[in-house]
Amino acid sequence: MPAPSARTRVARLPDRGHYEPAEIYAILDAAFLCHIGFVLPAESQDPPQACVIPTLFGRDGDRVLFHGSAASRMLRTVAAGVQVCFEATIVDGIVLARSAFHHSMNYRSVVAFGQAQIVTEDAQKLRALKIISDHIVPSRWNDVRLPTAQELKATSVLSLKLDEASAKIRTGPPKDEDADYALPIWAGVLPLQQVAGDLIPDPKLPPGIPIPAHLKR
Amino acid sequence: MPAPSARTRVARLPDRGHYEPAEIYAILDAAFLCHIGFVLPAESQDPPQACVIPTLFGRDGDRVLFHGSAASRMLRTVAAGVQVCFEATIVDGIVLARSAFHHSMNYRSVVAFGQAQIVTEDAQKLRALKIISDHIVPSRWNDVRLPTAQELKATSVLSLKLDEASAKIRTGPPKDEDADYALPIWAGVLPLQQVAGDLIPDPKLPPGIPIPAHLKR
Repeated sequence: MPAPSARTRVARLPDRGHYEPAEIYAILDAAFLCHIGFVLPAESQDPPQACVIPTLFGRDGDRVLFHGSAASRMLRTVAAGVQVCFEATIVDGIVLARSAFHHSMNYRSVVAFGQAQIVTEDAQKLRALKIISDHIVPSRWNDVRLPTAQELKATSVLSLKLDEASAKIRTGPPKDEDADYALPIWAGVLPLQQVAGDLIPDPKLPPGIPIPAHLKR
Repeated sequence: MPAPSARTRVARLPDRGHYEPAEIYAILDAAFLCHIGFVLPAESQDPPQACVIPTLFGRDGDRVLFHGSAASRMLRTVAAGVQVCFEATIVDGIVLARSAFHHSMNYRSVVAFGQAQIVTEDAQKLRALKIISDHIVPSRWNDVRLPTAQELKATSVLSLKLDEASAKIRTGPPKDEDADYALPIWAGVLPLQQVAGDLIPDPKLPPGIPIPAHLKR
């Protein structure tokens, strides 16, 4: 990965910035949801307007893949060649400082800029959809009814090369002003985690269909 | 709140769209992180580029409030009067359909467009910071050392009126193709939730400082 560009170099709190592919990939692989920012097509002389859409994604080496209905506004716009900002954040905790000012979050985030390319070839599209599926629930793809030609046609897949990406990470306890450490105020971290609950079977599920191994973890 | 505009009306899967303030506010009040999308200042003849930043926020009636260092790129740009896209999403589960195509997420999300206004007056700024703090950890504000004049100066607060906002909600089991219900594939929902773990005291915390009541829930 090349050196960080002006817009990916972490300017604020630069010690939180990371540019090594291994660090960026580890965050992407642990993240569940991403956000895609893009500029809406201009409707008049109005100033350009950004739009942010949450979506699922997967990683294929040095690329992130995301998808959706070919009809969705985001993918229509992005497929036409608009630049995107890809962002994924994992919140690890709330940092409870002694001062209001030093309250913070522990988090791991990745931001990448670039031109997303539409994946047109069916075999590559199927492969990309499997990668996105595996990212969310590993092995699920092997157990389900795979896309028909028509479903594949109705799905757009986009691929963004991580040429211009950075990670930002905050970990550890609060950092308070020296004088504040003497205050009788409890300080520390409230860890946060996204956890899975108990599976809820579809009410239309016929009896006798076992929960597959890939969902038992 | 006025009728949805062309860019907030949910075009794809319109039955997922909601425009009532009460529904929008309920999602905002339950959400933890938001994302702010904005267009980076143009550096040349390049096409406009969106940027997405995750941040904390609060709600004050029909406005969302967010903050950060006055030095951060986002707030520099937004305070100058650029339009923003505010987005907050709560993921409630992974929808496991019988077909790869009908896999989905259960979620509640809000998207709002508008011009964020910078809050300049100190008393209003303090009030906004308390609202953001209360949104993250209720009552914490009452127990901590409040911002000094210098800290207040170093913090930018922005306020966005929810004039042009919509919510999108998906709940319930998968919706498969009729023919697929006969397949012997387990289907249902894997619920996801963000949960708090056990508090981690700051290693620099002197002995004898109790955990305050507001952190015991």
